[in-house]
Amino acid sequence: MKAYGKKVWVIAEGYIPEYGTGPEPEFTSHETACILNTSEEKAEVEITIFFSDRDPAGPYKVTVEPKRTKHLRFNELKDPEPVPKGTDYSSVLESSVPIIVQHTRLDSRQAENALLSTIAYSE
Amino acid sequence: MKAYGKKVWVIAEGYIPEYGTGPEPEFTSHETACILNTSEEKAEVEITIFFSDRDPAGPYKVTVEPKRTKHLRFNELKDPEPVPKGTDYSSVLESSVPIIVQHTRLDSRQAENALLSTIAYSE
Amino acid sequence: MKAYGKKVWVIAEGYIPEYGTGPEPEFTSHETACILNTSEEKAEVEITIFFSDRDPAGPYKVTVEPKRTKHLRFNELKDPEPVPKGTDYSSVLESSVPIIVQHTRLDSRQAENALLSTIAYSE
Amino acid sequence: MKAYGKKVWVIAEGYIPEYGTGPEPEFTSHETACILNTSEEKAEVEITIFFSDRDPAGPYKVTVEPKRTKHLRFNELKDPEPVPKGTDYSSVLESSVPIIVQHTRLDSRQAENALLSTIAYSE
Repeated sequence: MKAYGKKVWVIAEGYIPEYGTGPEPEFTSHETACILNTSEEKAEVEITIFFSDRDPAGPYKVTVEPKRTKHLRFNELKDPEPVPKGTDYSSVLESSVPIIVQHTRLDSRQAENALLSTIAYSE
Repeated sequence: MKAYGKKVWVIAEGYIPEYGTGPEPEFTSHETACILNTSEEKAEVEITIFFSDRDPAGPYKVTVEPKRTKHLRFNELKDPEPVPKGTDYSSVLESSVPIIVQHTRLDSRQAENALLSTIAYSE
Repeated sequence: MKAYGKKVWVIAEGYIPEYGTGPEPEFTSHETACILNTSEEKAEVEITIFFSDRDPAGPYKVTVEPKRTKHLRFNELKDPEPVPKGTDYSSVLESSVPIIVQHTRLDSRQAENALLSTIAYSE
Repeated sequence: MKAYGKKVWVIAEGYIPEYGTGPEPEFTSHETACILNTSEEKAEVEITIFFSDRDPAGPYKVTVEPKRTKHLRFNELKDPEPVPKGTDYSSVLESSVPIIVQHTRLDSRQAENALLSTIAYSE
């Protein structure tokens, strides 16, 4: 299969709630970037997080193996710093090979029921 | 009418819950790929499912008749293997003619009330 | 302002529930195509509805005045025939001038709280 | 980082409910345009609001600082006139530099749980 997608993706809307309900981690409300790598090579992805009132954080480095998908939770990003909760942010994903990115937010009220999802902006 | 759309579509976010509530099949939570074929020819669609920790499954073969829409439920895909429940996946749809694909997840709590929907990525 | 948008838009996912709750029309669950015409001319829009098991219906004719938006409910389309309830459909919108189309489904449980929304496919 | 995005964005679907529940402002139902400016320059954004039955309002002027995101609530737009509640509208955002815009509606029933989100139309 061809390496589908684009190398740059942007999710303008981001927000990790400060609290959640239910047992962790399945019931935690969270933001997810679903990343698909259809290529034959590893995708080395650098994520930069933008805020409203401070300089950007990152880059966070994530690897997606060839012909694999990764459902990345933003609250698992710890290095160089955790993504703050209760704060609006945006994210830019820059990849070494073409990938496809979809933005999804899960609801803590039910296990794995997404509240919203949208294809990200690519160029 | 012209054959609108593209031949390749990608849905990066996929998840079939392991359980549901209410009478089957109307109340089953499920993922749907809504596929429209506006052309005068049959659309022969091959679907490949990508996972986080194993090789891709498929291709699954689906036909959409000329000037018809098909609301395909991923949990109806059985050959060459069922799409596993409780597992993150992504899907690539490759068609013989241009089509349009929209990704929708239905909520088992109410009949046919969708929880989310987004146009898929095309190229 | 420039005439922004495209002349062809496709909404692959469509479904009008067979029943609703609450006072009409505000609480009726319904599909909406939000159509914006930023141009200086009337947009003459022809809508064709595709089904899974019969020939397409339409064209339905809708006019959007210059520099106006129209939030079109599919259950208001009556000529040449009503859009059937409880049936999957897809829709193609072809306009005389560039427009922008967003697909939204409203939830009958609350007045004007949308359940889902996505930009449509354009070309 | 490169200045990603486009200079024109359109959100065809807009609606601010006439009422809400819970303490202000966190629990107010509201429409948000999440705007990301990855460039090194200020983004001077002009927003025009279109209605179904009157001339457009605006332009509303918003500035997004370099390398910052802004989650703009439409009910905070006051000059030249507030965006009316209980009224369908569409919005066009024209920026001096490339930006990325995502449309999100928050639900008044829960703090900061989005009800829907979609990437806007760009050109």
